[in-house]
Amino acid sequence: MLRAALIKGVFQDSVTLMVLSRDLSAAPGVNRVSVMMGTPANKDVYRETGLWHETLSAATPNDLCVVVDSDDDDPAAAEAMAAQLKERLAELARGSRRAGYPVARSWRRARALLPDANVALISIAGHYAFEPARQALEDGCHVMMFSDNVDIEQEFELKSLARARGLLLMGPDCGTAIIRSAPLAFSNRVPSGPIAVIGASGTGIQELTSQIARLGGGITHALGLGGRDLSERIGGISALTALDLVARDAASRVVAFVSKPPAAAVKARILEAMQALGKPVVALFLGERPDRRNIGAVHLARTLDEAAMLAFELAGTDERASSLPGVAGRGICGLYTGGTLAAEAALLLAEALELEHDAAHAEGHMLRSGGHRIVDLGDDAYTRGRPHPMIDPAARNEMIMGLAGDPAVGVLLLDVVLGYGAHPDPAGEVARAVTALRAARGDNSPLVAIATLTGTVGDPQDHGGQAAALQEAGIVIADSTRAAVMLAARAVSAQAQSQDTPPALLAAMPRVINIGLRGFADDLHANGIRTVHQQWQPAAGGNERLQRMIALMQ
Amino acid sequence: MLRAALIKGVFQDSVTLMVLSRDLSAAPGVNRVSVMMGTPANKDVYRETGLWHETLSAATPNDLCVVVDSDDDDPAAAEAMAAQLKERLAELARGSRRAGYPVARSWRRARALLPDANVALISIAGHYAFEPARQALEDGCHVMMFSDNVDIEQEFELKSLARARGLLLMGPDCGTAIIRSAPLAFSNRVPSGPIAVIGASGTGIQELTSQIARLGGGITHALGLGGRDLSERIGGISALTALDLVARDAASRVVAFVSKPPAAAVKARILEAMQALGKPVVALFLGERPDRRNIGAVHLARTLDEAAMLAFELAGTDERASSLPGVAGRGICGLYTGGTLAAEAALLLAEALELEHDAAHAEGHMLRSGGHRIVDLGDDAYTRGRPHPMIDPAARNEMIMGLAGDPAVGVLLLDVVLGYGAHPDPAGEVARAVTALRAARGDNSPLVAIATLTGTVGDPQDHGGQAAALQEAGIVIADSTRAAVMLAARAVSAQAQSQDTPPALLAAMPRVINIGLRGFADDLHANGIRTVHQQWQPAAGGNERLQRMIALMQ
Repeated sequence: MLRAALIKGVFQDSVTLMVLSRDLSAAPGVNRVSVMMGTPANKDVYRETGLWHETLSAATPNDLCVVVDSDDDDPAAAEAMAAQLKERLAELARGSRRAGYPVARSWRRARALLPDANVALISIAGHYAFEPARQALEDGCHVMMFSDNVDIEQEFELKSLARARGLLLMGPDCGTAIIRSAPLAFSNRVPSGPIAVIGASGTGIQELTSQIARLGGGITHALGLGGRDLSERIGGISALTALDLVARDAASRVVAFVSKPPAAAVKARILEAMQALGKPVVALFLGERPDRRNIGAVHLARTLDEAAMLAFELAGTDERASSLPGVAGRGICGLYTGGTLAAEAALLLAEALELEHDAAHAEGHMLRSGGHRIVDLGDDAYTRGRPHPMIDPAARNEMIMGLAGDPAVGVLLLDVVLGYGAHPDPAGEVARAVTALRAARGDNSPLVAIATLTGTVGDPQDHGGQAAALQEAGIVIADSTRAAVMLAARAVSAQAQSQDTPPALLAAMPRVINIGLRGFADDLHANGIRTVHQQWQPAAGGNERLQRMIALMQ
Repeated sequence: MLRAALIKGVFQDSVTLMVLSRDLSAAPGVNRVSVMMGTPANKDVYRETGLWHETLSAATPNDLCVVVDSDDDDPAAAEAMAAQLKERLAELARGSRRAGYPVARSWRRARALLPDANVALISIAGHYAFEPARQALEDGCHVMMFSDNVDIEQEFELKSLARARGLLLMGPDCGTAIIRSAPLAFSNRVPSGPIAVIGASGTGIQELTSQIARLGGGITHALGLGGRDLSERIGGISALTALDLVARDAASRVVAFVSKPPAAAVKARILEAMQALGKPVVALFLGERPDRRNIGAVHLARTLDEAAMLAFELAGTDERASSLPGVAGRGICGLYTGGTLAAEAALLLAEALELEHDAAHAEGHMLRSGGHRIVDLGDDAYTRGRPHPMIDPAARNEMIMGLAGDPAVGVLLLDVVLGYGAHPDPAGEVARAVTALRAARGDNSPLVAIATLTGTVGDPQDHGGQAAALQEAGIVIADSTRAAVMLAARAVSAQAQSQDTPPALLAAMPRVINIGLRGFADDLHANGIRTVHQQWQPAAGGNERLQRMIALMQ
């Protein structure tokens, strides 16, 4: 039996109403209770789900509809339920007075209560979200629009306004953002660290930041864009603003970006902005199948976990690079005893620095381009009349010493191969050669030496001792050829890290005016973020003509 | 001042001679000592390195050449050095009698000493390596040829012979192999585990197996092929034999393959053999830039560390899959609350199972193909009139229960998203729904449920408690969407693991006749492998015409 009642002039957000519906549905004899605001869209839902009752015809968007489907045919059931509901609403009102943060009825009042507010978090129904967003932007606040179903032309208008004012508009349909540690809407508690995340997808950001945390990493911020930002119509306005913000934020050392594949023209613009950042970027355009690892400083990931891993590795590389001496010579020289390791280093270095690949391999040169070279010392040119360089270190030792007269080389890449058959102390040989080379070059010609260590803890050479010998000689150990090349490329790259004052939005904890879902204000407050909740309800009782007239008069 | 001497009729391997050269060079007043066999190639090296002396003209490949470059002009210097050298050689001979394994002068004698020998490890100069290899194959032994500079036509002849006899020829120029735990030539001590490695590159295998060990994984075997096996001329003869061997080896659950990009026709044949294995394969064709993750069961890696990681993950997936109930329904159904997670799952599942991708996305279906479907419950079709499914689990719970009447679905993929704004107990909701579903389906319709858990240990829902709730409900937790899809694909794949008797080569520790570098026999012996060292020297004093005549008479 269906019964219905209205509670006039009471506005509540959809999450609060869901909780109320669920609690009331648990009453004995009740099959289902649905409590929603009387918007036209919700009325359609009642019709489509078989819960329509004539009482609802009179409901406005400011009226609470209560529909009860129960076994018993007591005509007072809905009224009793409405009475219970009023009681619960009164409880909520009492609770909100104890919430610990102010509640305001209007934007102006909220502003007055939090004069240095700089972010508006808007989560009311999309149909109504344009006007509060416009008002916040006009008033100098950045905006996060959790609301979805906002017209794309309205989005373009708001984003154009934001751009003109130097503000960031995150959304609409932006589920997640974190500014410093402030959780905006759906977000996880992610440790602090050097990675800035930018994303056009809510759960994309959530999974990416969670994976970064899982690896032991952390983030500076996570900025949302909304799912349509990279469409042709919007043109990536917010993405470009977000990239500019993190570019100027010295704490953000690595940027991780996630979105669906952008429109072609937008992608070109975004990639250009990424290249200009002066920081390594991981880009995941989910659904693309990149056949290369990077475009300049932009590393291309294929999945969320891979993007997190890459960003984590780049952050680690950045940290290691910052502890290395600055090198005058920008050339990288790799001297490898293992042919496949040389080939892999050459391939990866060519990709990382966008070098021409040398197919000729004259004299074991797997790469010779742009002042860089990778040599396979197992090539016939070096082994005639002597054993393989993994057994006999003489040929490589000579070539290492040859770098004494080559100050253009600033980074030396090496492999150290352990195991049966190999030299009994390859790390010792390398350590002595590098030490002698450094002495010969002198302090004016510093050299970064990076080695990979192929082998296991069970190998006869004593893995730990070999690693220690390298470290004592000031040789950095990389976990893989890939990591070694990443670090080498970073060591010779221009360190364009400006130490500007960070942009105001990222320099301090945000001060937030929350408009819509009450829970978001609770979470902000619980995290020590200064917050005012604006208790929004449709203007003019939801009458749209009247709303438009009011907007025009303001 | 250059002096030279010959020691006639003494053959030593190049590594032994390198060690001797190095030790003798340390004598006072000596600039350099070079000790090599008097092969034509070595004589050229003396000429090219300015160490030529007329005395060397008379040297045969069986004669030891001693060249001393010293400051002092004592004409007896070289003779004194030769005397020292003889002393050292006598020491070595005494040492070899104490080595603990037999030494033979001929293949026949070696065979008699180790009648069940099944592997010949050949590391003499490539120029001489054909004949011992042919002899070993004719005699029913598998062969590992460490020797390089073997003519490609000789390689083809030997591999054709090996194929005809059902034997594996690893090499020539095969630096590394491990059969069970037996180290053949250059190799690392790698823990035992379920991964079989096959490679056409020595350091490629060493780095790959070392990376697997670094991740905590292990291997069954590592089989080498030689760098030219995948060329058009050789046609991958040994690769196909090696794949066939690991196919029949039940302990090898995952195969990792590394080589340079094969010739096109060979690659097609190899990929076909890989697909037919009935086991997951990781293929790294170093230098290729695959734009897809897999071709059927063949997962494509781009670097050695990525190949190791993939093989390690597949081994873990295989192990987890083996503990799951067998499912009757072969369909995978993904019910996601996060849009990006749904999109990623759809992309990866389409790649994994080579499904048509559905671009329409009707009713949030990110994928609907081949009996599989991935649904984004955040789609408008499911959220009209209700909050987002990350807040309100009702819509998903209903769809989970809907699988009660859908026995064709055997695997359920889910996301559980924690964090601010999300449901306070999403794992509990999912656990209850899956438990109810399983009860409704009954024992005849088992269901594998796999969930990802987006969130951090700092999240308000209590990450550990959420994970425990899933596990208690028999829901497998995957570390990423990628891992979840990998496991799901494995759970519905045909388990074609035959439990044949493993091939003889892999079923027991090898028994090895070592021909060439003495150190290889020492390493085998030290690892408990039954070994005979054949003290090889060029037949007929290195006279090649005479050698050919002798070969024809045998």
